[in-house]
Amino acid sequence: MAKSKDNKKATSDQRVSKAVVSRLSLYLRELSRLERAGIETTSSTKLGEMLGFSDAQVRKDLANFGQFGYPGVGYRCSELIATIRQIMGTDQKWPVALVGVGNLGRALLGYRGFSNQGFNTVAAFDLDPKIVGTEIEGIPVFSLENVDKIVKEKSIQLAILAVPAAAAQEVAERLVEAGIRGFLNFAAVTLRLPDDVTVIGVDLAIEMEQLSFAMTSRMS
Amino acid sequence: MAKSKDNKKATSDQRVSKAVVSRLSLYLRELSRLERAGIETTSSTKLGEMLGFSDAQVRKDLANFGQFGYPGVGYRCSELIATIRQIMGTDQKWPVALVGVGNLGRALLGYRGFSNQGFNTVAAFDLDPKIVGTEIEGIPVFSLENVDKIVKEKSIQLAILAVPAAAAQEVAERLVEAGIRGFLNFAAVTLRLPDDVTVIGVDLAIEMEQLSFAMTSRMS
Repeated sequence: MAKSKDNKKATSDQRVSKAVVSRLSLYLRELSRLERAGIETTSSTKLGEMLGFSDAQVRKDLANFGQFGYPGVGYRCSELIATIRQIMGTDQKWPVALVGVGNLGRALLGYRGFSNQGFNTVAAFDLDPKIVGTEIEGIPVFSLENVDKIVKEKSIQLAILAVPAAAAQEVAERLVEAGIRGFLNFAAVTLRLPDDVTVIGVDLAIEMEQLSFAMTSRMS
Repeated sequence: MAKSKDNKKATSDQRVSKAVVSRLSLYLRELSRLERAGIETTSSTKLGEMLGFSDAQVRKDLANFGQFGYPGVGYRCSELIATIRQIMGTDQKWPVALVGVGNLGRALLGYRGFSNQGFNTVAAFDLDPKIVGTEIEGIPVFSLENVDKIVKEKSIQLAILAVPAAAAQEVAERLVEAGIRGFLNFAAVTLRLPDDVTVIGVDLAIEMEQLSFAMTSRMS
């Protein structure tokens, strides 16, 4: 099948920008909404309108990965959802570890938005003996000392890092040794890890600074 | 002073990209770390090394806003910190409202990283009569029905929106009526608000998808 070959080629292209991948996530979100509403087809114009993008932007983004529309029909929602999931890697299940069960860690354990996309938090790790051995939001909390064993048992490759900034580098190195290959990092530090490890940083203070920058720019 | 005039001009330039502003936040983080360690000057090379960027990148980003280095000295940390804070608008205090005190909302109330940058959460809003009238993490929880009065009393312009996706658009419109002009939106929907309102979206599922995309790209 020429199409899936094209997709394969495209997903291995590291040059696709973060902005494109973010927009793919948004297309996926809107397409899922349409599908739940019983709407079977859509167009680049309609998708763009829902998100405030031009139809050309939608077509250009999708063209990075192949040819998906049908003349006179537009996009078939269920088909485009399946294709974007395949491109994003969310057509598979990703067992995830949550490391650091403080305030933010607890909230993330209770966050339902991940599992819809195939991200299943299967283990939490902390050092606090008061919570190690318990379950929070139905997820078992293990001691960080047992991380090698648990990561292997549960085939975990992704970790959500919600430890204090001062501990983050050391804990991340420990997790890489245990086999973790990708991090969603909430700690306010830039992790220095081997090149084959992916780190996506989520620094809420930085997001707030984006907001104050935009507000300040408007006012000046 | 030519310099501050240059800065003023630059901060009102909407064309500075989100990526540049994100990197400014990272420079600020590293400069603050240096300052705390008693280090008074640094260079584009050292700043870049700490973050994995080239020295040219650092110089190019800062050049958007003026001329900050000294020949033979480099950057004076405290001065560059003050300048970046001025550019970002974090040299002032921003009273912030947290709207939606569920799991994530509670974690955000307990998050200490905001206040360091001048973002002070001064009021929380919810509909649940069990928590309205209480304090969580020292922050008073008000009924959304009183939002007009409280937003005016406390001069709040920014809101962190942590309500369920289905309620987000309606609640956001209500907040805009009350005087909110900027949102950090954690709800997994694209808000449609007037053009003079700034929305920064933080969708954790999208961040996870970035991670799975990167992992999938590496493996294919």
